Amino acid sequence: MTVEQFATRHIGPGPDDERRMLEVVGHDSIDELMDAAIPEVIRWHGTLDLPDPATEAETIAELRALAARNTVAVSMIGLGYHGTHTPAVIRRNVLEDPAWYTAYTPYQPEISQGRLEALLNFQTMVTDLTGLATANASMLDEGTAAAEAMTLARRASKSKSGVYVVDADALPQTIAVITSRAEPLGIDVRVLDVQRDELPSEFFGLHLQYPGASGAVRDHAALVEAAHAVGALVTVAADLLALTLLRAPGEIGADIAAGTTQRFGVPMGFGGPHAGYLAVRSGLERMLPGRLVGVSRDADGNPAYRLALQTREQHIRREKATSNICTAQVLLAVMAGMYAVYHGPDGLRDIATRTHAMAARLAAGLRAGGVDVADVAFFDTVTATVPGGAARVVAAAAQRGVNLRLVDADRVGMSCDETTTDAHLARVWEAFGVPAFDGDADPALPVDLARGSDFLTHPVFRSHHSETAMLRYLRRLSDFDYALDRGMIPLGSCTMKLNATTEMEPVSWAEFANIHPFAPDAQTVGYRELIGQLESWLAEVTGYDAVSVQPNAGSQGELAGLLAIRSYHASRGETHRDVCLIPSSAHGTNAASAVMAGMRVVVVACDDDGNVDLVDLDAKIDKHRDALAAIMVTYPSTHGVYETGIASLCAKVHDAGGQVYVDGANLNALVGFAKPGKFGADVSHLNLHKTFCIPHGGGGPGVGPVAVRAHLAPFLPGDPLGAHVDATPAISAAKYGSAGILPIPWAYLRMMGAEGLTRATGVAVLAANYVAARLRGHFPVLYAGNKGLVAHECILDLRPLTKATGVSVDDVAKRLIDYGFHAPTMSFPVAGTLMVEPTESEDLAELDRFCDAMIAIRAEIEQVASGQWPAGDNPLANAPHTAAMVSGDEWSHAYPRSVGAYPAGVDRAGKYWPPVRRIDGAYGDRNLVCSCPSPEAFED
Amino acid sequence: MTVEQFATRHIGPGPDDERRMLEVVGHDSIDELMDAAIPEVIRWHGTLDLPDPATEAETIAELRALAARNTVAVSMIGLGYHGTHTPAVIRRNVLEDPAWYTAYTPYQPEISQGRLEALLNFQTMVTDLTGLATANASMLDEGTAAAEAMTLARRASKSKSGVYVVDADALPQTIAVITSRAEPLGIDVRVLDVQRDELPSEFFGLHLQYPGASGAVRDHAALVEAAHAVGALVTVAADLLALTLLRAPGEIGADIAAGTTQRFGVPMGFGGPHAGYLAVRSGLERMLPGRLVGVSRDADGNPAYRLALQTREQHIRREKATSNICTAQVLLAVMAGMYAVYHGPDGLRDIATRTHAMAARLAAGLRAGGVDVADVAFFDTVTATVPGGAARVVAAAAQRGVNLRLVDADRVGMSCDETTTDAHLARVWEAFGVPAFDGDADPALPVDLARGSDFLTHPVFRSHHSETAMLRYLRRLSDFDYALDRGMIPLGSCTMKLNATTEMEPVSWAEFANIHPFAPDAQTVGYRELIGQLESWLAEVTGYDAVSVQPNAGSQGELAGLLAIRSYHASRGETHRDVCLIPSSAHGTNAASAVMAGMRVVVVACDDDGNVDLVDLDAKIDKHRDALAAIMVTYPSTHGVYETGIASLCAKVHDAGGQVYVDGANLNALVGFAKPGKFGADVSHLNLHKTFCIPHGGGGPGVGPVAVRAHLAPFLPGDPLGAHVDATPAISAAKYGSAGILPIPWAYLRMMGAEGLTRATGVAVLAANYVAARLRGHFPVLYAGNKGLVAHECILDLRPLTKATGVSVDDVAKRLIDYGFHAPTMSFPVAGTLMVEPTESEDLAELDRFCDAMIAIRAEIEQVASGQWPAGDNPLANAPHTAAMVSGDEWSHAYPRSVGAYPAGVDRAGKYWPPVRRIDGAYGDRNLVCSCPSPEAFED
Repeated sequence: MTVEQFATRHIGPGPDDERRMLEVVGHDSIDELMDAAIPEVIRWHGTLDLPDPATEAETIAELRALAARNTVAVSMIGLGYHGTHTPAVIRRNVLEDPAWYTAYTPYQPEISQGRLEALLNFQTMVTDLTGLATANASMLDEGTAAAEAMTLARRASKSKSGVYVVDADALPQTIAVITSRAEPLGIDVRVLDVQRDELPSEFFGLHLQYPGASGAVRDHAALVEAAHAVGALVTVAADLLALTLLRAPGEIGADIAAGTTQRFGVPMGFGGPHAGYLAVRSGLERMLPGRLVGVSRDADGNPAYRLALQTREQHIRREKATSNICTAQVLLAVMAGMYAVYHGPDGLRDIATRTHAMAARLAAGLRAGGVDVADVAFFDTVTATVPGGAARVVAAAAQRGVNLRLVDADRVGMSCDETTTDAHLARVWEAFGVPAFDGDADPALPVDLARGSDFLTHPVFRSHHSETAMLRYLRRLSDFDYALDRGMIPLGSCTMKLNATTEMEPVSWAEFANIHPFAPDAQTVGYRELIGQLESWLAEVTGYDAVSVQPNAGSQGELAGLLAIRSYHASRGETHRDVCLIPSSAHGTNAASAVMAGMRVVVVACDDDGNVDLVDLDAKIDKHRDALAAIMVTYPSTHGVYETGIASLCAKVHDAGGQVYVDGANLNALVGFAKPGKFGADVSHLNLHKTFCIPHGGGGPGVGPVAVRAHLAPFLPGDPLGAHVDATPAISAAKYGSAGILPIPWAYLRMMGAEGLTRATGVAVLAANYVAARLRGHFPVLYAGNKGLVAHECILDLRPLTKATGVSVDDVAKRLIDYGFHAPTMSFPVAGTLMVEPTESEDLAELDRFCDAMIAIRAEIEQVASGQWPAGDNPLANAPHTAAMVSGDEWSHAYPRSVGAYPAGVDRAGKYWPPVRRIDGAYGDRNLVCSCPSPEAFED
Repeated sequence: MTVEQFATRHIGPGPDDERRMLEVVGHDSIDELMDAAIPEVIRWHGTLDLPDPATEAETIAELRALAARNTVAVSMIGLGYHGTHTPAVIRRNVLEDPAWYTAYTPYQPEISQGRLEALLNFQTMVTDLTGLATANASMLDEGTAAAEAMTLARRASKSKSGVYVVDADALPQTIAVITSRAEPLGIDVRVLDVQRDELPSEFFGLHLQYPGASGAVRDHAALVEAAHAVGALVTVAADLLALTLLRAPGEIGADIAAGTTQRFGVPMGFGGPHAGYLAVRSGLERMLPGRLVGVSRDADGNPAYRLALQTREQHIRREKATSNICTAQVLLAVMAGMYAVYHGPDGLRDIATRTHAMAARLAAGLRAGGVDVADVAFFDTVTATVPGGAARVVAAAAQRGVNLRLVDADRVGMSCDETTTDAHLARVWEAFGVPAFDGDADPALPVDLARGSDFLTHPVFRSHHSETAMLRYLRRLSDFDYALDRGMIPLGSCTMKLNATTEMEPVSWAEFANIHPFAPDAQTVGYRELIGQLESWLAEVTGYDAVSVQPNAGSQGELAGLLAIRSYHASRGETHRDVCLIPSSAHGTNAASAVMAGMRVVVVACDDDGNVDLVDLDAKIDKHRDALAAIMVTYPSTHGVYETGIASLCAKVHDAGGQVYVDGANLNALVGFAKPGKFGADVSHLNLHKTFCIPHGGGGPGVGPVAVRAHLAPFLPGDPLGAHVDATPAISAAKYGSAGILPIPWAYLRMMGAEGLTRATGVAVLAANYVAARLRGHFPVLYAGNKGLVAHECILDLRPLTKATGVSVDDVAKRLIDYGFHAPTMSFPVAGTLMVEPTESEDLAELDRFCDAMIAIRAEIEQVASGQWPAGDNPLANAPHTAAMVSGDEWSHAYPRSVGAYPAGVDRAGKYWPPVRRIDGAYGDRNLVCSCPSPEAFED
């Protein structure tokens, strides 16, 4: 490979590194290593049928050409997606800044204080605006937030009813997602005109839109009261910008608010990603799905942030979980929160007021021209009636570069936003054939619903309004965090590989960023071509026949895959098949997804080697043969092993009439060497944010396409705006999910080509085996497959050491911070262990730096074991060490400061210092605070 | 102003801040303050005639429209400007990263180690490739580098001759710049065909191009020998990419090498900016102009970088200076150096080899088609002869989207580069009307000149070849530095204001970045419109009649302005006018520029108040009345005062037949309130990197337009490619200088409008007076004008304290680092003082943080004064404190660690730690090392 080929930039080790690593691992070549590691029964020996790799420059040129085939029109379609001005300082210093976008989920809070503070801003913004007590750290989009609100309502409601009432003026895609989610759970969704229709006598929940999809702003107080009277909970899906002017959902008694924060500076991106939100009244906070940031304290008693109430999460609750979501939309939530920080309450109110004034002028102009505009209060959206002429008006507007909403043959919807200008209004009036209007327009906001309460009163929303101040705030926060731009993040199963700049740059281009998900097809030719190519390339890589990119997180991909299996069985009249086998080593999300897909989870044991116990599998299949719907396995296993029994496992399940779901989390160990679709699986979801280079963004966005064999293809996700068919569920609110970031995996595949991808897999496996070989003498490596080889990750067993010395995985993880690393995955899949996945992007120098650190830590543990350091006061127990701690005037520890601060091999001048000491998570859970603490809390 | 208006983002203090500041300063409003501060005699009471301010979104849309009127063609024009692939990781993490671009010149080396290391890489790259001993940290472009080489040769040569011989195959724009520079210095430039023409019997220097503009690669060894025989020095203007394959200038005996590093990843930008280079053989290093980075050591004895040999610099040597350059092209030098780091020696050789292969195939194809291609050795450029048909071929190629060089009616030049593809060659062949060629082409590099020596052998050029490694290296270095993204940089006269993202983003757009300076006019319509508007807006702001943006640094603007005065006098037959009056308070560059413009410097004294002594002025005018060419003053003065005598000064000089040059360095105190062109000045240069928001880039790029009244307009810089006329000199190599960054000031002016600009000036003056008012009780404020008011900056006098306590300005400057600040300007214009310019972009919180720090430092000085702390061991003497120091196992200082590390008010968690302790500059000057030290030097 030459310097021009991107693969040489993506893959860390060069030829010299590779030779040295092979030597240590004891193999002659990567090919030979892979022959030894991967069971021949699943091995695929072809060459991926992908275009020859393009250089970075060629790839950018091709993406420019695709982008040029999209048309950026003025979007007045609304329906939850609005034009917005991303403040340039936020675009450049968040969305385009690797310090933010290459960060991992903040499971190690001591090195994640920056994004945790940013998320706390987001939560505070949501609770302030909605008038509710607690908001989580974001949802995937408004549709899925609303669906989660429904299941939350069901759990919290005292009503025995299975009926969920949905306002007919809710966003159509929200109705589709709710309906899709409800069906497998046996919930009866009733879409009613809640202004006119009578409510059912019993129901457990009510979903209202505020303002409605039509634009109407209605006082929902009476409905809320009626719902509460029958024990139902009320979700108000509210527009946060409107809430700067309108009474908050919490003030009219809503239990839950759900929605999107897209218009807070996050481009539409043809549907996503952006941050949905979910907020609840006091008393429901422990039932919130998703991630919740809270305030706690560190070892010095200083305030510190971390994820709160983690025991609610699906990876712990498994089949008892009430939601399967893992990924949030952290990067986008950070942007939306920062938009509020930058504008402040006055700025937001200003934007809302201008937006409303535009809508009012639009309506007044139409009325002055004789057009019938619905006579209701509105915020930003008006609906006009032009009997039989709606399509003509919409087409006329599109010709003028403005997209309107075709409600039906007679009605046209129009939404204004902060980007709306007089010139846009003029074009709309032209499209309607009415004269331009330059009179005054009366406000159309309902006086009774005028907001009386303050919001965003915390100083953070008043301190960063100049660009200079904002820039410094963003820098200060990002400096708190450890991301891939500082060093390795060796997280098992999370595949923290390079997120190349060339992959990232197109995300900012207007032709990808500023497209409404419901824009006419003629305006999205480039996008759809890109998506079509990406789907076909992913199908080639995985060996499946069809792919849908709609699921906007891995969890959603799981659900989509399981729903496809469910629909498939149903299509064959086998609705009784509802058992999902899941190995005990599986990620908890698998079980949670199965439950959401209406399945019963049956756990299959693992043997001593960590493999699925085929004897137990036989027993479970026998027991549930007639009801067997599916088995869900991860391959290579969550133990990081290429299990040899996989083909046999697939055959057994197929024989019993079940389908095989292979979780694609570990696909980075297979690409180019084995194809799940060819070795026996029927369906997989992929994690584009793992194997295919979408950055983790500090905990989202993720993309989790679902890939299936042909017989399941009819049951892939459908268009949420299309006529809803049970067989093609709406998994996300937008047809192509988080389309805005699909240029990233497209570029990765385009630049790597067959050879590059295959080599990447080989190097990833080589790197994991190199780490295992170097560390095996210091920590037991827990599982291995063929010839003692691991796959792309390895598990280091600390349990014997912990038992002997009291030094825990937590201690080692925190101590690694002192050495300048992010910890590996802790206690998954086996409690008391660390799982390391180095990926192909780390070069030998970084791998060695990590191994050296682990070996040095092993020696430190020895000093605890030998009693040289007390169990309670040693560099491990006190890790991580902050600069403030090691430079304190007093030092009474059993070891010198230098040992705490600068363990062997640390880059002194460039050392990363965590901003807080070890955080007491339990304290924060006992004293739950999930919005910005007062500045006084931080005083010395 | 509303949230939409950019001025509210640019200007730090909001309405509340402003009220508080006015209160402290003791004025009712900004208007009233300005009325009091600015002498009525110069005050201008109009409203600037500028377009109404556009929002950020509107400005981007307008710039997109302008950009769309440029055409990005394939550039094969060559002549020192080449297509290049900027590695995306470098674009995003250097060019687009505020940590790099908002940094100041590394005068405070302890907080500039990142860019100093990057510049050392650059210097090492240049010395390795040129085979010479020492390279400086960059020059403005190849033309000015060559001109500086000429004057260096003159100083170093033992020859008494005034003749400078220039190879006719040198770049035409280089010849123009050399000639323009030679004329006022009395140097006789002889452009000769050095292959054929006889050399003069006496000459002091010889300039050779390698490869030549024609593409010819010739062995210059015999010419070098001949030049040395008569005591002349030889400059080889060499292409660094070619040098990866060709024998180095140093290896053929060259004394000096000069050139550009543009093709090392820096976009052409319609002419700039990019880093020129200058390298010299051993023995000449102390004569190098510009900035030179060298290795020294810090207080702990660790290696540390800083600017070396600063006593050579013009700000110290004034009229004895041998060059006037201040600004280098640091940001672009960093990019070029990083390009070498990323590609490494093998990668660069690879790129050169591919480039050459393209040129060889191009030539072979033309020859195969019967076209006459010059039969010489070449690297990337070939010249074809098509008698009478050159224009036709060039036009045909342009129609096919490829720009070739029209050498003359019969000859066409074509240069290949790393972006050249087979498709490009095919289009060129088509333009020539010859068939596509697919045979093999023999290499055309001269075997005798093949490079035998290694280069880039330092590990830094072998360690960062994966994108992950490169990203981390860039982050590590930028983390070492303190830039505007961390906090205030209150540098007097340097106007470190906001560099807004919206101003910066267009710089990366292909339609601005990828335009060759000699592209046909039809392809640069948008650029020229933008430049025309910018020039007219600058004329409006300054009150002049004409502006040229050609000077690519303030120093070049000074030279251009003085040359215009010189030419004006000459045009009136007054060539004897050669005296330039310069006040003693002037920046040293003024005097250096005057000398370069062929003038004699006569110093005018200042009175006790720091103002120009009008009595001495009268005396000097009397003495030099007939010879008086000009006076050069800064306004407001370098003392930060609105001198009331300015109008009278102008009148006196005019009466004596002289011209008035007002240095525009302090224009930030005038915009909207006074216009130099209206209060008596004839010419000014502006600093777009001060008043008009071009970022300092860590020490460049700068842009220094020259603005003149109508009578001087005919003498503004001309087109370096045009027929050379003495009256319109070539100041830079490209007609519009650093055109690529002109969208920045354009956007600033477009977004601020008259009101915003005027308000910015008022707030800048308010901020300076606020700082003066808060600090006056702690440090004497040295000068003031009307009613005790300063202008936009204030001078804090430390001399009494230093005398009493030994605590120096240096100590205070370094101690400010511990408090989280960049020091103010030290000892300019008055030794022993600090000059503070807060600018309008700092909000009250940051101004107060600074004032509080200064007051706390004053209290610390008191503790030294009182003997509580020993003079030699106190937080001031030991500043700055590194993390390693304050966390050391031993602590034997007279104050606690916490006092050293965390003085009052410091943000503990977010504290910026300098990577090194105080640096011993003199040690490094005695032991000069100006390339990368071996890694062992850094071992503990």
